[in-house]
Amino acid sequence: MLVVMQTHATPDEIDHVVDAIRAMNLTPHPMPGATRTAIGITGNIGAVDSRTLEVLPGVSELIRVTKPFKLASREMHEADTLVAIPMGQAFQLDAEASHVRLESLTYEKNVTIGPGTCTMIAGPCSVENEAMILRTAEFMMENGVRLMRAGAFKPRTSPYSFQGTGLEGLKILARARQKTGIGIVTELLDTDNAEAVEDATDIIQIGTRNMQNFALLKRVGMMKKPVLLKRGMSATLEDWLMAAEYIMAGGNYNVILCERGIRSFSDHSRNTLDLSVIPPAKKLSHLPVMVDPSHGVGKREFVPQMALAALAAGADGLLLEVHPDPDHAASDGAQSLSFDGFKKLLESLRKLAEPLGKRLN
Amino acid sequence: MLVVMQTHATPDEIDHVVDAIRAMNLTPHPMPGATRTAIGITGNIGAVDSRTLEVLPGVSELIRVTKPFKLASREMHEADTLVAIPMGQAFQLDAEASHVRLESLTYEKNVTIGPGTCTMIAGPCSVENEAMILRTAEFMMENGVRLMRAGAFKPRTSPYSFQGTGLEGLKILARARQKTGIGIVTELLDTDNAEAVEDATDIIQIGTRNMQNFALLKRVGMMKKPVLLKRGMSATLEDWLMAAEYIMAGGNYNVILCERGIRSFSDHSRNTLDLSVIPPAKKLSHLPVMVDPSHGVGKREFVPQMALAALAAGADGLLLEVHPDPDHAASDGAQSLSFDGFKKLLESLRKLAEPLGKRLN
Amino acid sequence: MLVVMQTHATPDEIDHVVDAIRAMNLTPHPMPGATRTAIGITGNIGAVDSRTLEVLPGVSELIRVTKPFKLASREMHEADTLVAIPMGQAFQLDAEASHVRLESLTYEKNVTIGPGTCTMIAGPCSVENEAMILRTAEFMMENGVRLMRAGAFKPRTSPYSFQGTGLEGLKILARARQKTGIGIVTELLDTDNAEAVEDATDIIQIGTRNMQNFALLKRVGMMKKPVLLKRGMSATLEDWLMAAEYIMAGGNYNVILCERGIRSFSDHSRNTLDLSVIPPAKKLSHLPVMVDPSHGVGKREFVPQMALAALAAGADGLLLEVHPDPDHAASDGAQSLSFDGFKKLLESLRKLAEPLGKRLN
Amino acid sequence: MLVVMQTHATPDEIDHVVDAIRAMNLTPHPMPGATRTAIGITGNIGAVDSRTLEVLPGVSELIRVTKPFKLASREMHEADTLVAIPMGQAFQLDAEASHVRLESLTYEKNVTIGPGTCTMIAGPCSVENEAMILRTAEFMMENGVRLMRAGAFKPRTSPYSFQGTGLEGLKILARARQKTGIGIVTELLDTDNAEAVEDATDIIQIGTRNMQNFALLKRVGMMKKPVLLKRGMSATLEDWLMAAEYIMAGGNYNVILCERGIRSFSDHSRNTLDLSVIPPAKKLSHLPVMVDPSHGVGKREFVPQMALAALAAGADGLLLEVHPDPDHAASDGAQSLSFDGFKKLLESLRKLAEPLGKRLN
Repeated sequence: MLVVMQTHATPDEIDHVVDAIRAMNLTPHPMPGATRTAIGITGNIGAVDSRTLEVLPGVSELIRVTKPFKLASREMHEADTLVAIPMGQAFQLDAEASHVRLESLTYEKNVTIGPGTCTMIAGPCSVENEAMILRTAEFMMENGVRLMRAGAFKPRTSPYSFQGTGLEGLKILARARQKTGIGIVTELLDTDNAEAVEDATDIIQIGTRNMQNFALLKRVGMMKKPVLLKRGMSATLEDWLMAAEYIMAGGNYNVILCERGIRSFSDHSRNTLDLSVIPPAKKLSHLPVMVDPSHGVGKREFVPQMALAALAAGADGLLLEVHPDPDHAASDGAQSLSFDGFKKLLESLRKLAEPLGKRLN
Repeated sequence: MLVVMQTHATPDEIDHVVDAIRAMNLTPHPMPGATRTAIGITGNIGAVDSRTLEVLPGVSELIRVTKPFKLASREMHEADTLVAIPMGQAFQLDAEASHVRLESLTYEKNVTIGPGTCTMIAGPCSVENEAMILRTAEFMMENGVRLMRAGAFKPRTSPYSFQGTGLEGLKILARARQKTGIGIVTELLDTDNAEAVEDATDIIQIGTRNMQNFALLKRVGMMKKPVLLKRGMSATLEDWLMAAEYIMAGGNYNVILCERGIRSFSDHSRNTLDLSVIPPAKKLSHLPVMVDPSHGVGKREFVPQMALAALAAGADGLLLEVHPDPDHAASDGAQSLSFDGFKKLLESLRKLAEPLGKRLN
Repeated sequence: MLVVMQTHATPDEIDHVVDAIRAMNLTPHPMPGATRTAIGITGNIGAVDSRTLEVLPGVSELIRVTKPFKLASREMHEADTLVAIPMGQAFQLDAEASHVRLESLTYEKNVTIGPGTCTMIAGPCSVENEAMILRTAEFMMENGVRLMRAGAFKPRTSPYSFQGTGLEGLKILARARQKTGIGIVTELLDTDNAEAVEDATDIIQIGTRNMQNFALLKRVGMMKKPVLLKRGMSATLEDWLMAAEYIMAGGNYNVILCERGIRSFSDHSRNTLDLSVIPPAKKLSHLPVMVDPSHGVGKREFVPQMALAALAAGADGLLLEVHPDPDHAASDGAQSLSFDGFKKLLESLRKLAEPLGKRLN
Repeated sequence: MLVVMQTHATPDEIDHVVDAIRAMNLTPHPMPGATRTAIGITGNIGAVDSRTLEVLPGVSELIRVTKPFKLASREMHEADTLVAIPMGQAFQLDAEASHVRLESLTYEKNVTIGPGTCTMIAGPCSVENEAMILRTAEFMMENGVRLMRAGAFKPRTSPYSFQGTGLEGLKILARARQKTGIGIVTELLDTDNAEAVEDATDIIQIGTRNMQNFALLKRVGMMKKPVLLKRGMSATLEDWLMAAEYIMAGGNYNVILCERGIRSFSDHSRNTLDLSVIPPAKKLSHLPVMVDPSHGVGKREFVPQMALAALAAGADGLLLEVHPDPDHAASDGAQSLSFDGFKKLLESLRKLAEPLGKRLN
């Protein structure tokens, strides 16, 4: 349910409505807008007598949200969500660092993810060692890519496969961030490491296998950092938006959806990249939608064309696996682009972005 | 198996090899190239003693094709196949017709489908009556679209649904072709109507439900007109190329593949449009690959973005449902674009084609 | 729509209603029942004024059928359909043949497929030669199996694979039928061979790849012999019943449904055998449902357990691949049972049938 | 890798081998057998020089395990695993309780899950209150069902749906266990509640959404209680066995696999119950395999036939949703059997078990 306040409603009136909602054992979610404030309500709203709220001073109208997802739906939040990643501070720190050669480039203070732009997040599958992470971070910053993905904790099908460098990996990422000013995107696998990951990262990634790990979703719902939520490999669009709802219901509204391929009978690719989910996802929800063509396709040679296709389909960003030496990567080498391959792709993406009314950032 | 002739091989030498292959109860498929001729061999090649052919005059080498598809594979035919649709004659006829206003446009004589271009095939789901077909044909020609799709025979899930206008529909299409110079793409549903469809059409469409109707594939393999082969809704890439092989084994090498969505659990779209099949299809095969986003997505509002995505993914053409009055279409209205919607999409596609090194035709 | 006649309605009254339906350009399907006759109506019933029929003498009531499938639905035909295969004549012929040793067995004149029984249809994937067909037919008759499957025309993914022995194969089947009294089930691939197949067979099989080959469905709808309709590998239950409807709309009401596995991501079996389709299929439709575990599973060693499971799930029959020498079969050897394996399975099935209230036939 | 000891190997020799394996930074898993002990080795065995172990006293041979799953594979553990649930103690406690009327029944001390039996686990989707749990527990014990399922923590697609009664629910289950002697099967959703769930339960359930929640798998790998591991809804057989391997690698070898339906395009049932996974699962692995037809099918009326089919397919047990008042259940009522429906099903299962060489327990 959504309480729309009058344009001239006072802060006191808004507070009063918020208190009244709490008194009903429901959760208020105030959403300040350009001209007026709306207050989303979640919880067991079945028994609510809407007249109790309608009569409060400053209230304009009550809207019942018909979708099972509430905070994630366009019904409750019409305007596109722009997720701002505050990059300035880290960047200023590294401005003095000797080995970051960024003289020729100027960056905006923040990276903003959402319509109008296509945000690049690129980097290796896993943090292998400090040298390769630093090398990748510098390469990305030199090429205008300001967010680096790299896994410290790796979800592996086999218990005997490389499980990531863990807390040591997080420290490496934190140092790369401090030295180069790059933003960090890394996966959180379990609630135990929630704080450590939140400290080290700018965007917390929830992987496809954990899309319905509700304990984990609730935990990141209590965090302040934005969350990149990968689609489960057998999740319908509604399942996915309901997973986002779990995070938002906890108070963290900065959720970025990320399509990465679903499971089908089709065997020419690792997964079946479902680009056609983008338009309906953006119709039903105000959240940004990114695409990970590397996991979708699973083979390096086919990644660039699907990255271009994702951009054309309306993706607000791309998550790409890039490795300084893909043939010797500790994991997912087959689907990782080399630095050269990635630079060529960036050029193609920049050319394509313009006619699509998008800007790479 | 592929016999590569020497660059200076004479026509007699080539004929001699062809005869030798026939004498082995195998089928030769001569493929003249820019610098030399190759001769594909199909049939039961397991027991062939390759030395019998290697020693013939003019033979350079024998190459064993490892894929189960032979004529459709890049191993046997390295260069991209360009399918030429001879449009000139029809066009000249209609140059005198009063109600075709094409003064401002100049067309190349033929439409060529393959890399470097993106060929548009657009029109209504079914031939409803002559007026709407003519109106659509004129609209297409005015907007530079030279191939019109429209079904006379309709494969419908229900025996009680509109089954198309049949032979009468074919006549309407033939008249529209004669009057406007537009090329016709229509579906052949069964062998009984093979000749009637071949006469009326420029490209014969084989629908998704008939992708493994082997009797029908063999029949169009004996025809001269190009065949647009839709992917079966549960066909792997290999199944699809094997279906193309059935057609090519009969001697019709002008096969155009067309992705139109597969069946998966995902329920936000009518089918799951598998754009990621394009790069591997083009790696394994030399045949052009088109995409039908209308059937893939099933909802008009989401078609344009998937059309753009298909172009970016490398599609050599697009098959689109466009109707003068979509809300009153006899079939598939929900996924048909209006004329206005289609014009806007054409503009977007033209803008996008350039940075992709493609030209709309 | 269904016209239910009064219990005492006369033949003349029934004929009158039938004529009235025809006069409306609709198709009447009279269905005599134990106590009264019902008349199904198909065609474009949207505009029918039901009062025109309700007032006719002998009419009890009109029932609107809400499902898209009409003749196949339980709404229109409440009692289970029993498909009778008339076997007597063939059997009497072979009673004199020297090489059929059936002294110890007595057969009912007909085989009836439907609830209460589990009908076995077993035999090789393809007719390889007369000896193996005769040997298999005799083996089956000796073991109480009175219907043999064997393909003369084979739908093969590759144009270069063994395509069956064709018309010669049909002749072999006809001779085996005459000599042993066994009933024949063989696949019809195309309309061209419709008559030849109908002559040689007792049940006409429509394969999974042709489930939506509507021209073929219409053709067998005009035949007299029962049709075994395999489920398409990506067909929903509704798609499947609509395919049955195509056959029934033509006047052939003896349709037997056959589940044979669908396509999913699951890769441990050739297809994913969907046994859970049986209960809803039997709820929605009155048609018998059989199961083909051989194609479902694809590996001989796993076939028996799935045959037992199919019986327990309520299957009215089983279609099984059995070969005198599976390791040297021309096709599908890997999923064919040996004679010994099949005999063991028959014993297990007989034991299981009793507590399920079924009888093997 | 598997070290097979000689039949007369002494405990000291076995200990020596175990120590040698640890010294290589690998993990030994001693598996005492009827005639000799084998020691599984997991970890990074790539670089192991097998001769180091082969020469140790008492070692018979070394076997390299080729499957990616090791401890879960039949290669390493040939005999079927029987998971024993010690029930005696709880049962003796409640023997004095007034409201348990079990006079007419005699139970074996333990429930053993594995080949030869079909173990019933039945009960409501969720713990709603003490009365309904107690009533269900008593009903189950009276009907010879000694394990009750009931969720205290519920994984719900929506954050606004009933999330279970949590710790209070666990207490209710513990009391029902103490009063009636019934064994408890309940789901563990997250590591935070691991101890509480382990205390309250006899079998810990890992749900389909958590099948690749590796942190949770590792946690239950350190527990002593058996684990029922549901198949992920898009998990291949190998994925599933690898998830079991995660648990076993931690030292908890009592894993019970449970099929509950996969996601496919097929829409007649909630999920597509993949019974055909049972034979290959039992071929590749020694672990027991159960089936949950309630979630597989999703509709009460179709559950019994699929339960019978699962038994016939070789299931070692069934997990069934049964509720005293299904139409008013807090969750999953539509797929829950009533007490009466369940009793009828039990009778049918008992009849069917005998010819299958199984015994219900």
